[in-house]
This record gives sequence, C-alpha cells and structure tokens, in this order.
Amino acid sequence: MAEFQIPDDLARESNSKIVFLILDGLGDLPTGPEGTSPLEAARSPNLDALCGRGVCGLLDPVLPGVTPGSGPGHLSLFGYDPVAAPIGRGVLSALGLNFPLRPGDVAVRMNFASVDAEGNVTDRRAGRIDDETNRRLVNLLNGGGESVKLDDVDCFVRPEKEHRALVVFRGPGLTADVSDTDPQTVGVPPLTPRAGTTEAERTARAVGAFLDHAGAVLSGEPQANAVLLRGFDTLSRLPSMPERYRVRSLAIAGYPMYRGLARLVGMEVHEGSSDPVRQVEIAAENWDAFDFFYIHVKDTDRCGENGDFDGKRDAIERVDAAVPRLADLLFGAESGDRSNVLAVTGDHSTPVSLKAHSWHPVPVFLSSPACRPDDRRVFGETACASGGLGRLPMQRLMSIALAHAGRLAKFGA
Amino acid sequence: MAEFQIPDDLARESNSKIVFLILDGLGDLPTGPEGTSPLEAARSPNLDALCGRGVCGLLDPVLPGVTPGSGPGHLSLFGYDPVAAPIGRGVLSALGLNFPLRPGDVAVRMNFASVDAEGNVTDRRAGRIDDETNRRLVNLLNGGGESVKLDDVDCFVRPEKEHRALVVFRGPGLTADVSDTDPQTVGVPPLTPRAGTTEAERTARAVGAFLDHAGAVLSGEPQANAVLLRGFDTLSRLPSMPERYRVRSLAIAGYPMYRGLARLVGMEVHEGSSDPVRQVEIAAENWDAFDFFYIHVKDTDRCGENGDFDGKRDAIERVDAAVPRLADLLFGAESGDRSNVLAVTGDHSTPVSLKAHSWHPVPVFLSSPACRPDDRRVFGETACASGGLGRLPMQRLMSIALAHAGRLAKFGA
Repeated sequence: MAEFQIPDDLARESNSKIVFLILDGLGDLPTGPEGTSPLEAARSPNLDALCGRGVCGLLDPVLPGVTPGSGPGHLSLFGYDPVAAPIGRGVLSALGLNFPLRPGDVAVRMNFASVDAEGNVTDRRAGRIDDETNRRLVNLLNGGGESVKLDDVDCFVRPEKEHRALVVFRGPGLTADVSDTDPQTVGVPPLTPRAGTTEAERTARAVGAFLDHAGAVLSGEPQANAVLLRGFDTLSRLPSMPERYRVRSLAIAGYPMYRGLARLVGMEVHEGSSDPVRQVEIAAENWDAFDFFYIHVKDTDRCGENGDFDGKRDAIERVDAAVPRLADLLFGAESGDRSNVLAVTGDHSTPVSLKAHSWHPVPVFLSSPACRPDDRRVFGETACASGGLGRLPMQRLMSIALAHAGRLAKFGA
Repeated sequence: MAEFQIPDDLARESNSKIVFLILDGLGDLPTGPEGTSPLEAARSPNLDALCGRGVCGLLDPVLPGVTPGSGPGHLSLFGYDPVAAPIGRGVLSALGLNFPLRPGDVAVRMNFASVDAEGNVTDRRAGRIDDETNRRLVNLLNGGGESVKLDDVDCFVRPEKEHRALVVFRGPGLTADVSDTDPQTVGVPPLTPRAGTTEAERTARAVGAFLDHAGAVLSGEPQANAVLLRGFDTLSRLPSMPERYRVRSLAIAGYPMYRGLARLVGMEVHEGSSDPVRQVEIAAENWDAFDFFYIHVKDTDRCGENGDFDGKRDAIERVDAAVPRLADLLFGAESGDRSNVLAVTGDHSTPVSLKAHSWHPVPVFLSSPACRPDDRRVFGETACASGGLGRLPMQRLMSIALAHAGRLAKFGA
C-alpha cells in the first residue's frame, strides 16, 4: 500500500468556498512611525475586524531562517513541499515571461557574455548590454522568427532584461540533466555541456548545436559574442490542486509569473487585474464555478523591494477597501455556507528596510465560522507572534483551510 | 548502524512518576457565556493553580488541520507516530469490545445487510435491526458457541450495536491484505473478497468460507439475510512503552476501547472507574508499582458529541475535584521525588458546537518542579495559545514529560 498522504487522502467535496488573499511580500519590520511595520501602520479596519474574529499566527514558507523565492513561497501556500517540489530557474524564467512551457520542454537561463580571441570569457555579462541590444540579438538567434530549428529540436530564445535571456528546447526525448556552460569565472573558456545520464545525451547534443549556432550568429558582435547557459530545467508534473484537494481553483493575478505558478498546480487562470476591488469583483463573477480562489496582490512586494514604506502601507489600505465585499461574499447573509474560509497572508516577507525578500515569518489570519478565535484584535506582525495559530510551516495552511471548510475527513477510527 | 531513535535511545530509569490525565475531547470553541469554552467556563481552581505554576501550550494530534480518530489521538499521546502506526477499524472495534485480540488475528468490521432474490444488496444496514436481533444472529453464526471453525480457521463473531458486528479470523498464516466485500452502494451484489498479495490467498479463502457459512445460516431471515465486510486489519506489533521508555505503565480507564489502546502499547490495565476521584485513588493504591499512569476521562468527549456545553463544563469540574489528591501524590511533602510530572490534556478536540471530533489543537499544561513556567495563570484554550510550550506535535509530549522526569539522557557529547 502506498504511504498515506495528508491532506490528499482525507480530501472530500463540499459546497464551501475558500479564498486565499495573498499580499506578496507582506511581512515586514517595525521601521515606521512609532515602531510600526507597514501592515501595522496601515489603516485597515476591515482586515482588523476579520482578524479580530479569526485566528492569527506566523508562517514559515520553507523553514525558519530561509529566504524563499516566489516559486517556493507560492508552492508552500498551495500546500506543496517547496523543497521536494522545487521550481528551477529556467522554469521560473519561463513563467515570468509567460512563455507557454509544455511538459518535456527543457528551459535554461542564458546570459550574453564576452570572449577573447582565444575563446576565454572576459565578461560573464557582456558589459550588461542594454535591453534593445538584447532584443536585437535574440531576434538574430531566432533567425528572425519565433524559434530556430536545429536538427529536430526547436530552440526558442526570449529576452529578459540587460544581458539575461531564456532558451527553451522543444523536441522528442529531451531531459534536463545537462551541465551548465557558465564557468562562473573569467579567463577560461565556456564549459562544454555534458550529459549527466545516457538519456540526456540527446539533449546535450541539441545544446551543443545551439551553442555552435549562437557562436556563428554572434561572432561579429563587439561585446555579446558568446552565450553562457545555466540551470537546465523541465516543467515538473505536479499533482494538481483539483486532484489533491478536490477543489476547482481560480487564480486572479495581474502578473504573468503568478498566473504561471497557479497553472503549474492546476488552477484555472483569470486575466486578472492589479486593482484589489476589481479582483474581488472577478471572484464574485466566478463564485459558483469554483471552490478555491487565489487572489494575488503584487504592490506590497514591489514597494518592499523599492524600500517604499508609505507605498507598501498604501497598497495594504487599497486591499482593505476591497475586503467588505469579500467578507460579504464569504460570510454575509447570502453566502449560503457556514464553512467558508478566508486566509490573508503573503508568500514571504519583503521588508522595506532590506529592499529584498527575507526569512522573517509571514503574518497570517484565518477567518471562518468554525475557527477558534484568539485574543488578538489587529492584523500585524507583533499581534500574530502570539496568535492562536502559533508558528507553523506555511505548507500546513492549506490543510487548516480545508479542515475549516469541512473538506477533510477524519483520520483513523 | 540502525537509526538513532528519539526518545527511545535516550531513555534511562529513574524513581520519578509521570501522570497523563487525559480528558477525552477536551479542546473546544468559545461558544459559552462571555465567549468561553467549557474548559474556560468551568470552575477549576485546582487545575488553574497547577497550570499557573506550569507551562502550557497547544498540541496537534496528527498534523495541523487533521481531525483524528481516538486511535491516532491516543497513539500520539503515547509518543507514537500516528500516521506510521495506524490502527484500523477492525482492530479498534475489537479493542472497543474488549475482544482479546492476538498477534496474527485478522479483524474486520461486519454489517448485517439485506439482499434480494437476485443477490443484489437492497439495504446495507438490514433496516438497522435491533440489538437483540443482532445478538441472536451472531449466536447463530457462532454455531451457538464462542466461534465456528471452518477448515483450520476459527471465526469469532461478536455483536456491536444495531446492524454492526465484528469478525475475527484466527488460524495459521493469515494476513489482512484482503479487499472489502461491502460494495458501498445498493442494487449490486456484495463484492468477492480478493487477496491483494499471494500470501493473502489463504485468508481470502477463509473469508469466502465464512461468507458461504453466513449465507446458509441467514438465508431464511426476513431482513438480515447477508453480511458485508470492510476494513480487514491485524494487530500490529508496536514496541511497548516499557521497551521504548523504560517505564512500567498503568492505564486507569473506564471504557474498554481505551484499555485496549493502552494494552496495545504494553501498559498494564486496571479495571478502572468513571469517577475521577476514584481513578486518582487507584493511582495512589498502585503508586509504587508503576512509573507512568494514564488516567482516561470519557465524559468530556461524550458531552462534546452530545452538544452538551454544561455537561462538559461539569465533567471538567469533577476532574478538578480529584486534582488536589493527585497534586499531593506528585508534588506533596511525601512525594519523595523532585522530578515528578503531571500533564493534563486531551487526545483531540470535540467542540460542543460541532458535536464531533475536530482538527483544533488541544490545550495542554505540564507541571513539574523543573519546568519553565510561563505567564499563563488559567487553563484554557485562549491562554494556551500563547503559552510557553507553543504549538507542538502531540507526539512530542511524551519526550517532554520524560525529560522533566529526569528520564532522558543527554544527546551527544
């Protein structure tokens, strides 16, 4: 008998609705007026009221002390083990660029680089060429089209910013077990791509063919006359949320990467909006067709990365303005089910003082008629540190939400 | 080298005593007067005083969000992994009926059912026949004795309530890997029991022989003219508490199922009582002969299942009345050891508003001279949410108790 999976093997259907309202990079440090965080400084009476009737705590996206990327943070929110089911750099780049990656595709991060007459790398970033040059060179590599075909493999190149680009190899029998060509230093030639397994030899040859092609196309360039590849990666087939939890799931997200992450776990995806009021309205319009709603708000993270305390505070206040309609949908007289669940949290912390993702645990509250309220009355990092949920792995939030939604059977007799 | 087991490989002997006072289904929701739970509404000055000098917290029996049955909840209390060492329905039925199950026995839950002339199931519960009919039919199936022998296998049938019964197969070479015969629907015939492995073919034949026997015996019955079997199960051999922790353990429990669960982990079992004052007196009478005492109180769970807030509150107050004598035994001038430990908790939550087991974590406090007291002064769900133990897997309580009892050696040099 296969090992018992929790919560998967306990999941059962129900009419209840679950909403995850995710403020990207929500967690912060008390660097604002009177020692407040942006969340604590925000006037957010609607979030506070729901938190006051709910139960709050702190979530660790990966493990205490670990700063997560957006991929692991979101996998954990969706109830997946972010270490066992990692998302590599190539796939994350593809998701971020909204590239329609297919199962079997091999994605890899590409840097334009400079090599000297002996073929030794002199600059691993080709002098950080500008975006326009990047687009021009990518167009050359694609032979002026969408992709270039080498033998039976299609090679799609897509520009990112400055010297960064994405390559996707599509063809029969490709695997990702190929070594990087980036030597991670200068004064030596790029490395030869090597197959880590017999099955990967076909892929290593395709990569070699692409490198020959790139060398020929770029040979006359003054700066970007070579490319370096690192992080070969395939789209893992993850068991979907509908399979695992028996929930029809809708993602409402304005940014391509988050829509891509949602697709990865089997959500349907709405074009989205960056206005929280509109996002809640989209949920309302699709209320009957789905069980689980993932609403993603980007502004909190963006302001954290920019070191913009006031901007992050204001972004939270814009979310707060959308909360009454959401509360009415979930818990109002017309809501129809006494087991609906709202969880409000982030995928990681992005403190404005650090201008980057951080390892600090993320404040969360859960509101549902069957929750056990604690004595915390406002939604903030300090209050959450002694809330009734305690400090939990973020991956457990999904089980807790499913339980409150009446969607998990009892374990054992 | 075999993997190091914690706490097993650290366990050492001592003269100290540990008492686990288990109020079944203790955890609840604040649905009482002034937003209190039954535990918070109870006048329990003696529990509060011990909690005030102790350290409290919240325990998850299985995992956050998971509602445990009584089996997993108790395994976790006794320090066993409830997912790796599950107890199936057949064994739990046998424990509940006080059937003296032996290693190698295969136990299965049986329902009396109705089939039509074509052999299709028309009622999976035989119209919920009364207990007297159940006992009469079970007597027929046992051939008027304790069991019926079919080939070299003894089949023991025992009545439960209404249409429910237990069958235990005892004979050489039996295993539980046999499929259910309950089709879980009507209008189709019962399923044929199939062996999941080659080793189970012998058992599948014995089950088939029993079904033929039952069909013949019941053929003239107006309602219960068939049986359905589900949940084949054997008594797993768990390493015992004396082996694992070097504690001689006594269970004081009024209900058969809990005595059975205690036997499963190698406790000796007292006939018990349902009066907490008497239960503590039994502990006193056996104080020198044992190191670990498990006292089980059922009324809290029963009232939770009945939705009886006042009854649950009163049951807690009856426990409180027994606490002074227990505290005196453990911590009084005559107690003789400065490392005695009391832990008070439940095996799961049973909120009166849900009338069922639930996933909410269970309040706990631990009292011992060497504990680190927190600032919580009353024993209740809200206070425990910010107690010094934090939120822990229930399975860890045993290690913590052993540690305070001076019964765990240092790990590493």
